[in-house]
Amino acid sequence: MDDREIVKRISEIIGSDKTADDCAKIIVGDKILAVSTDMLHEKTDFPKGITDWQIGWMSAAVTISDIASTGAKPVSLLLAAGLDNPDRIEDIIRGADSACRKYGAEFSGGDVDSHSELTIVTTGIGITDSEHYVSRTGAKPGEIVCVCGNLGHAQAGLLGDMRYFKDLCEPQPKVFEGMRLSECKVSCMMDISDGLAISLFDLSDANNCGFEIDKNLVSLSDGIDFETAFYGGGDFGLLYTCQKSLFEENNLPGLKLGVVTEKKGVRISGKNAEKRGYSHTWN
Amino acid sequence: MDDREIVKRISEIIGSDKTADDCAKIIVGDKILAVSTDMLHEKTDFPKGITDWQIGWMSAAVTISDIASTGAKPVSLLLAAGLDNPDRIEDIIRGADSACRKYGAEFSGGDVDSHSELTIVTTGIGITDSEHYVSRTGAKPGEIVCVCGNLGHAQAGLLGDMRYFKDLCEPQPKVFEGMRLSECKVSCMMDISDGLAISLFDLSDANNCGFEIDKNLVSLSDGIDFETAFYGGGDFGLLYTCQKSLFEENNLPGLKLGVVTEKKGVRISGKNAEKRGYSHTWN
Repeated sequence: MDDREIVKRISEIIGSDKTADDCAKIIVGDKILAVSTDMLHEKTDFPKGITDWQIGWMSAAVTISDIASTGAKPVSLLLAAGLDNPDRIEDIIRGADSACRKYGAEFSGGDVDSHSELTIVTTGIGITDSEHYVSRTGAKPGEIVCVCGNLGHAQAGLLGDMRYFKDLCEPQPKVFEGMRLSECKVSCMMDISDGLAISLFDLSDANNCGFEIDKNLVSLSDGIDFETAFYGGGDFGLLYTCQKSLFEENNLPGLKLGVVTEKKGVRISGKNAEKRGYSHTWN
Repeated sequence: MDDREIVKRISEIIGSDKTADDCAKIIVGDKILAVSTDMLHEKTDFPKGITDWQIGWMSAAVTISDIASTGAKPVSLLLAAGLDNPDRIEDIIRGADSACRKYGAEFSGGDVDSHSELTIVTTGIGITDSEHYVSRTGAKPGEIVCVCGNLGHAQAGLLGDMRYFKDLCEPQPKVFEGMRLSECKVSCMMDISDGLAISLFDLSDANNCGFEIDKNLVSLSDGIDFETAFYGGGDFGLLYTCQKSLFEENNLPGLKLGVVTEKKGVRISGKNAEKRGYSHTWN
């Protein structure tokens, strides 16, 4: 079983509207709160060689990235830490607080207790207004699909390319880009933290549409191959769809990858893509 | 080192205003959000014999109780679960969802992954307006101190009195009582989940005041002694201070325990109380 199957089971209890997006959407007066929570563990989520400051940064960044994908402005972050060693907390807090400051959020406190394996859960709250909230649904055939952010950097860092190790440990959520994209009313958006390929499949499922990706449009950084860029996880870019004219007239951040199609699934220059990426599994 | 010392270290990084209360206070337009996050682990937080449904209920209830202590109305709850066995998630979600429904909140989703020891983090959001938000500070000498809710039930259940085992596993946050107390503008409030005694010491520290408790006013349920009622943790009552006239004229929920004094510390019928209760420790 993997986490996508678990989410399916949960959606049968609480409703699929509650599990479809990375953020919960909560209405407060004329504002919308985008709220997201993420759990990370030392062994499964933090790469070897990462510092405690970077663990704090990364923990904040994963949640801030979920908020960015709705176009909301991050305002507050809470952090719960299960600590194997209490001396680690100060650097973790400093790292999380730095990420909050960079993206305009307040580090608002949290909870600590002792635990055998370092475990961190961050919960972030973003604010936007109802006309600018962007969800995973809204893609329409004929639109273009675009990505904003580097591809494969984190995966390359994980595979040992030290030029990209900092990209792996200090991911940079696309908060300001997300706010710009929501102002311009892109059709749908999500972050690509589990990998570009699996995120395209997620959007395909959410929108009952497909994607035809032009392999030549997938931008490759120095030393990074297509496999790493397309299937690797840990980069915090934003994947979105919109009308081609909207993209061009507003000079939207990011690059075009291909087009939205009626037929479900993901194709790369005509061939079916593999549905794989980052996923938690239970054996 | 215990968790109160850790919180002190964190407050030196992010400011003591962020760590003083169980909830973060976030301003959204003319509303105040009360946000709280709590981490629970199978071995240290869930009693033997508890069901997965009750684990879900308890996880939601601890956070809902933090919100209740501000007088806010709970509106949304997120749950992150690190699962040793994916089959446990459905009952956990059902229990958490039931607690949310009882107290008027929406179960809004969360995060799941695999973990060696079951670990659950709930984050709750409550809403109130700025004139009704109640914090831990505001107690004034001459006021009375009161508690709303049962004392020692959870501790008795933990110690093997099966009459109280359900009180231990299905704590009942005082949400509606908290909203009533905030409407009537009590001076300060907190929940007593770590125990009545340690909560009085926490209020003493936060308000630079003390408490003179009348031992005869500590209400004892059947089979529960003073020690268990005063020092035991796990009950989700509300501890608050207010003017005696406010208490009497409004028929406020709860019972008077004693008075607020100038001198710091906690005294029970003239003797110093011990500063102990539930606390996480690291060795």
